[in-house]
Amino acid sequence: MSAPFERRIEACRRRLEEAGADLIVCFPSPNLTYLSGFEETPSERHLWLFVPESGAPALLAPTMYEAQLAELPISGMQLHLWGDADDPLETAADVIEGYSFDPTGPVTVLVDDRMWATFSQDLRTLLPAAEFGLASAVLEPLRIRKDDVELETLRRAGAIADQVSLEIRERGDEFVGTTEAELASEIDRLLTAAGGVEPAFETIVAAGSNGARPHHQSGSREIRTGDPIVLDFGAFVPSDLDGGTARYPGDQTRTIVVGDPPDEYERVHKTVEEAQQAAVDAIEPGVTAGAIDRAARSVIDDAGYGDSFVHRTGHGVGLEVHEPPYIAAGNARELEPGMVFSVEPGIYLDGAFGVRIEDLVAVTETGAERLNDTVRGWETGR
Amino acid sequence: MSAPFERRIEACRRRLEEAGADLIVCFPSPNLTYLSGFEETPSERHLWLFVPESGAPALLAPTMYEAQLAELPISGMQLHLWGDADDPLETAADVIEGYSFDPTGPVTVLVDDRMWATFSQDLRTLLPAAEFGLASAVLEPLRIRKDDVELETLRRAGAIADQVSLEIRERGDEFVGTTEAELASEIDRLLTAAGGVEPAFETIVAAGSNGARPHHQSGSREIRTGDPIVLDFGAFVPSDLDGGTARYPGDQTRTIVVGDPPDEYERVHKTVEEAQQAAVDAIEPGVTAGAIDRAARSVIDDAGYGDSFVHRTGHGVGLEVHEPPYIAAGNARELEPGMVFSVEPGIYLDGAFGVRIEDLVAVTETGAERLNDTVRGWETGR
Repeated sequence: MSAPFERRIEACRRRLEEAGADLIVCFPSPNLTYLSGFEETPSERHLWLFVPESGAPALLAPTMYEAQLAELPISGMQLHLWGDADDPLETAADVIEGYSFDPTGPVTVLVDDRMWATFSQDLRTLLPAAEFGLASAVLEPLRIRKDDVELETLRRAGAIADQVSLEIRERGDEFVGTTEAELASEIDRLLTAAGGVEPAFETIVAAGSNGARPHHQSGSREIRTGDPIVLDFGAFVPSDLDGGTARYPGDQTRTIVVGDPPDEYERVHKTVEEAQQAAVDAIEPGVTAGAIDRAARSVIDDAGYGDSFVHRTGHGVGLEVHEPPYIAAGNARELEPGMVFSVEPGIYLDGAFGVRIEDLVAVTETGAERLNDTVRGWETGR
Repeated sequence: MSAPFERRIEACRRRLEEAGADLIVCFPSPNLTYLSGFEETPSERHLWLFVPESGAPALLAPTMYEAQLAELPISGMQLHLWGDADDPLETAADVIEGYSFDPTGPVTVLVDDRMWATFSQDLRTLLPAAEFGLASAVLEPLRIRKDDVELETLRRAGAIADQVSLEIRERGDEFVGTTEAELASEIDRLLTAAGGVEPAFETIVAAGSNGARPHHQSGSREIRTGDPIVLDFGAFVPSDLDGGTARYPGDQTRTIVVGDPPDEYERVHKTVEEAQQAAVDAIEPGVTAGAIDRAARSVIDDAGYGDSFVHRTGHGVGLEVHEPPYIAAGNARELEPGMVFSVEPGIYLDGAFGVRIEDLVAVTETGAERLNDTVRGWETGR
């Protein structure tokens, strides 16, 4: 087993022990990917990862996955394949019987938060006297602190978003007369050309008054001279680990203007830029997520735009594009080194325009490292 | 509530009563879509459909869905929205307390087979003495018999696939020199131009020896004169019901040849065509799914290609592209009017070529209705 997965599984075991739990069972989900490097879509086929508090971790999978799983960096893990002629529950029972706990006793089992009911019912049959809890109790505190491999992958995703952002900014007035949707599809093309696997979410291009809607869907509106344009995008990049299929997203926003901006624009843009900087400056271990939100919000409040900042300041990013920690008012969660999240304050003026500036940041031992660090101003052209 | 959903919910209630169950709880899945017309991706937000054996059906949903749910054809259903400041479990408890059973008593609750463990754990908290089962026990026998609205939608999906199939066949030699992937993307374009929403699955274009792999992924191989080409595709079409977001897939396969076919090809193609016809001829209510598989397989066996027919004869189609009934050896399930499934025998000659011919069929009171009915031969050109 390659070192990062070995370390993750060891950390999982320690937390199982602390929680007094005997076994964790994952199902295709970010939890399974985190512990094994294997990414797959949920289906009606039994594909489970067992990590016992004591004993060997094991993957139960249909035989059709044999070749794919043989390539995984999980040489220390047992592979239990079931074929068309087998009952997967019998194979699962064999795995469980190999462990040191009594499967008919009052064991504590944590199941993947996204495990389908059909499978959690199966586990209740296999472990009739067990107490069931959720895997997140053990895995969320691990996944929220990114390890070196994850940080390196997220840095690459950030660099790709920065490169595309700069290219779009430089080409600026080329895009006058094209539609939002056309520019979004050009961004998607550049993201994959730069080494991304695919966009990590639907690329947002919101021109003029469309920018006042934070989740605008890029459409047929043409980009005109003087339009502020909100550009929010990022690509998945594959993890560095050989053989794994895990991937991590980029997520960056800039708001640019082709030509001269409308009235009030420069003041709004400057306010958002300052709010974003204030939030990043406030980041250090031990500070709460809520305090980071407050740092951004107070700059915007002081400038008189408090009612126009209609969303939380950020969200964690990792195997999922949105995951803990949420940088939101009142969140008492304390920041820890290795947490990665977006800092993306915005001001949205209905019927006029919107401005959002977003970077991903990693919490360090002493402060914050920006994973995006390209120009944040609104000016375009070379 | 528009008539089809009223009928589906009434049928669901009757089966709950027969099964001695008090309540079914669905989560974003084909089950929820079937009962409400509402299609959504699972997420961490509580979005549940309650159908009690007695009492009003109710949707629990985040307030952000209010506009969308107001458009649904479910006027007889209660809507319980929860906002950012609410605990969705309190709202759920209110719904449950409105029903006639005692929520603290030994009720029987069927949960969606795909409900995430985080939500089924919530239900165990809300209904502490309940016995839990799976929704499919009640819903699978309903969903397997398509109603008139579903049949009409599936006919439209079939007509779109037929239209595109014919167009590709007529343009035949135009495609010599293009790659499989290019032809696949042209098919996808034609499917949406013909009224499809999007491809229902990844379009398969498998030329020459690639056709010998049933699940080949269209790639960079160029199409050459004399290549047999397996074309397997279909598009989702929206259901006829106003306001619903449900959609049903097409799924059709033809194997065509540009120019003169290779040796043995005509005999293989004719065998597959006859096997497909024999299977369709065998369809009538009361016959088992296994017997339909046998009808196709025996034609192929008799021609000496038995070992080259490496998959089951077909699969059910409805809100899912693959669902029961499975037309497979030994399946004792008896056919009923309203069942819709694919009939798709194939012969795969390693290193040479493959032939598969697939139509969707609906079981009628007396036999079968083909939902695809365009030319099945291999010849191309106008």
